Amino acid sequence: MQSSSNPQVSIVVTAYDWVPSFAQGYVRDLRVRWALNEAKLPYEARLIDHRQKSEPEHLARQPFGQVPAIDMDGGSMFESGAIVWTIAEASDHLLPKGPAERRQALTWSFAALNTVEPVVARLVEIAFFLDDEELKAKLRPGAVSAVETRLAQLQAALGERDFLVGEFFAPDILMATVLRNLGHGDVLAGFPALERYLERCLARPAFEKALAEQVEPFARNAARYEVAA
Amino acid sequence: MQSSSNPQVSIVVTAYDWVPSFAQGYVRDLRVRWALNEAKLPYEARLIDHRQKSEPEHLARQPFGQVPAIDMDGGSMFESGAIVWTIAEASDHLLPKGPAERRQALTWSFAALNTVEPVVARLVEIAFFLDDEELKAKLRPGAVSAVETRLAQLQAALGERDFLVGEFFAPDILMATVLRNLGHGDVLAGFPALERYLERCLARPAFEKALAEQVEPFARNAARYEVAA
Ligand SMILES: N[C@@H](CCC(=O)N[C@@H](CS)C(=O)NCC(=O)O)C(=O)O
Ligand SMILES: N[C@@H](CCC(=O)N[C@@H](CS)C(=O)NCC(=O)O)C(=O)O
Repeated sequence: MQSSSNPQVSIVVTAYDWVPSFAQGYVRDLRVRWALNEAKLPYEARLIDHRQKSEPEHLARQPFGQVPAIDMDGGSMFESGAIVWTIAEASDHLLPKGPAERRQALTWSFAALNTVEPVVARLVEIAFFLDDEELKAKLRPGAVSAVETRLAQLQAALGERDFLVGEFFAPDILMATVLRNLGHGDVLAGFPALERYLERCLARPAFEKALAEQVEPFARNAARYEVAA
Repeated sequence: MQSSSNPQVSIVVTAYDWVPSFAQGYVRDLRVRWALNEAKLPYEARLIDHRQKSEPEHLARQPFGQVPAIDMDGGSMFESGAIVWTIAEASDHLLPKGPAERRQALTWSFAALNTVEPVVARLVEIAFFLDDEELKAKLRPGAVSAVETRLAQLQAALGERDFLVGEFFAPDILMATVLRNLGHGDVLAGFPALERYLERCLARPAFEKALAEQVEPFARNAARYEVAA
């Protein structure tokens, strides 16, 4: 495990030291790294392996044995949505100023994680975690159509705006990372305005930096996992 | 549609005028009504029928054609999680005072809706919305075990505390309404400390009041739906 060594850096994000290739660049600490980079808050990563995620030290930080978790301002918290929102509150960049717009930002943050992510996650699960081909064929059409329903509604709601609440804010980090999980499959292709929205979000330098920072240790640690497997 | 008639009441919750019996008392405006009752904020309901949920007037408020939505302080917002959090911020009762505890409350709010609810919703979906008995039998074991994993972790995380962040706060409204969706089935029975937690939450007078307020119009409107069906 690597830990914070620089005393000036008080933010530590817990992430995995390696994940299988299909998950590389898609682990949820990406959202947190992205938000920190947007907010220009320096951070270090505490990298854990897949044995450590079930150990008491990690469960004290993240009781569901997942990542991300964050140590910040002397306390720790988990849930990517809660962390991104908290970083946004601490930053000048990631939330609108007006109270009404701030409520819209909170609304869209929950919409990303409680309305759009569940249907997207379901489809991803069928694609990547289901082996039974017959079951896959039976479940996929309904899962695709559930995603399409939400995407059509999201596209209509976005309308002519560039981002969910006008400018780029915290909810866009959450929504973009959710939509990005659809990959370059044909589902998103049916919603060109959402594709453009996603491109606009992912074009941000802070996203590129976050992505590089997440995947950087994976190559370094791959050998150990390949031996172990 | 009923709308706010009392000029002193500036909070209006959008809910359904009727739902099928299995959903009565479980529609997500319950969370919002519960939070409003805890916060002692008076509100009125705008009841829509199932045709109106897809109409432009409702979609302007709730772009996914769902309930709840809320009109409050001259603006409107949706997503039960975002609304409950916003009510909590406006209230003295539903959030802890210290910033560290407040972050824990936000963490647990997202944990309820982004970690626990998805697995619970999946199981409920299999139980109530799947007709194919063979598919049901194939999918249920995995869905049950996903719920059990999360419940075991949640129970361990709750430990000896009465509520998620010590006292009763906003995240308990969210977590309790999620756990309550498991019904009186055998899944929750394996986690006695969570059953007691749920009982503690549901024993609150504000919950009872919210429940009564949600179901009150259903009987009145049932006849119309039965004729229409
Ligand atoms: N709701 C949580 C979900 C976190 C989550 O799903 N983390 C995944 C990686 S993206 C994980 O650690 N999975 C390992 C496991 O569940 O054992 C959040 O948004 O932080
Ligand atoms: N994430 C949303 C979900 C809202 C939701 O699922 N609402 C249901 C009732 S509990 C609904 O209106 N369903 C009708 C539909 O989806 O057509 C929230 O928490 O507000």
